[in-house]
Amino acid sequence: MIRGEPLPDPAAEGTALTPDGLAAALRAVGEARYHSHHPFHHLLHGGELTKGQVQAWALNRYCYQAAIPRKDAALIARCDDPALRREWRRRLADHDGDGPGEGGVDRWLALATDLGLDAATVRGQQQALPATRFACEAYVRFVAERSLVEAIASSLTELFAPQIISQRVHGMLANYSFVSEATLAYFTPRLTQAPRDAEHALDWVCEHARTPEQQSAAIAALAFKCDVLWAMLDALHHAYVAPGHVPPGAFVPEDA
Amino acid sequence: MIRGEPLPDPAAEGTALTPDGLAAALRAVGEARYHSHHPFHHLLHGGELTKGQVQAWALNRYCYQAAIPRKDAALIARCDDPALRREWRRRLADHDGDGPGEGGVDRWLALATDLGLDAATVRGQQQALPATRFACEAYVRFVAERSLVEAIASSLTELFAPQIISQRVHGMLANYSFVSEATLAYFTPRLTQAPRDAEHALDWVCEHARTPEQQSAAIAALAFKCDVLWAMLDALHHAYVAPGHVPPGAFVPEDA
Repeated sequence: MIRGEPLPDPAAEGTALTPDGLAAALRAVGEARYHSHHPFHHLLHGGELTKGQVQAWALNRYCYQAAIPRKDAALIARCDDPALRREWRRRLADHDGDGPGEGGVDRWLALATDLGLDAATVRGQQQALPATRFACEAYVRFVAERSLVEAIASSLTELFAPQIISQRVHGMLANYSFVSEATLAYFTPRLTQAPRDAEHALDWVCEHARTPEQQSAAIAALAFKCDVLWAMLDALHHAYVAPGHVPPGAFVPEDA
Repeated sequence: MIRGEPLPDPAAEGTALTPDGLAAALRAVGEARYHSHHPFHHLLHGGELTKGQVQAWALNRYCYQAAIPRKDAALIARCDDPALRREWRRRLADHDGDGPGEGGVDRWLALATDLGLDAATVRGQQQALPATRFACEAYVRFVAERSLVEAIASSLTELFAPQIISQRVHGMLANYSFVSEATLAYFTPRLTQAPRDAEHALDWVCEHARTPEQQSAAIAALAFKCDVLWAMLDALHHAYVAPGHVPPGAFVPEDA
């Protein structure tokens, strides 16, 4: 399918997909709408950005990283099944670690400071774009409030993470003198964590979304999550690629 | 202080307590209102109950155990501080374990089945008293919706757990032929987990509740939590000690 195409909608059709059919529909939606297709990523990976623009990306993406443990805990908080809670707790541990500096959130902070940003500024999130913060909070609220099927389906963008990560690491190392393997150390464990988590989540959704309505909701949830990621890059692109659109109070690159 | 006495209320006084003063006030409220004073516990620990009544206690208390991981995850979901999230994640791990049968929830299930109850019946919670379920859900919602100070303060009943646990284990082993050390294995790790968690939570509350309003809210939150535990025992007492009050659909002991 292509990016603007309407979503598959079993509820409108009045016919449930098989579990395999739902998995295929979810993969097709994610492949079409994942933010790997966003022009900002093409610029980022292709070496077309200044260091200040790359900093803006890292600083804004920190808001997303910092929201993820709250999002995952919101999911656990709604979950009556201890096995699913245990599975999901692994994500919390991956992101928060067992001590300062060990989890994904702090590893992203290290990426940002390695790019020359101040840790307190990044952590404070005050210089992030408002649109970034709104998108991240929308994701946390979605997971806290929608059905469990939708909450879990919204995590399925991770199915597509390994591909973009390898493009990113390869492209950024090749194209930016200020980026080293150490800068991008965040991504190494994600290459194994994300697919492991995503395959479990996909199996769970396809097993539990059996009615046409649940299946349409799951597909829409994944599309929503793609929208969250896309909106974050739109905001970055508008503020930092097209010149002169940095909103009041947001990060201003020194090389702008 | 005694049980019915009004709560300390720094907001009404217009004067903040010192951190040590707040800690003392919280300990006094908990000591006065903790469910160790409830008549049902005196009967339970003193060997005054039938096996069916002990089963009713175990079956109802399972609802509370099963709600705790959701309560703890709801707290993590609201928490911006990774260090506090990590500390609280230990509670999730204690209650859910790393696999089936390993955490506190499943250890309570083992207690219930060792008393002769059917595991699926206990897990299903359908035969629990409605008042039990309402009280447990009120606790989860309180933690999800109130301030972080109140959410954490509501956990402070654990300060008083070791005392009731040793009374309980001693009394039940001495007084009931159908209770063995294996039946009560749930409680052994709680003797170290609960005080470790509670001292951390008390320090956090006394450090973060600095205004009179925050301090009154923290004290009221601990009183609320005491009310939750007390209400669960009131419901048990009414339904299973005073005869003839088992509500429609709830567990009926074979020896009733």
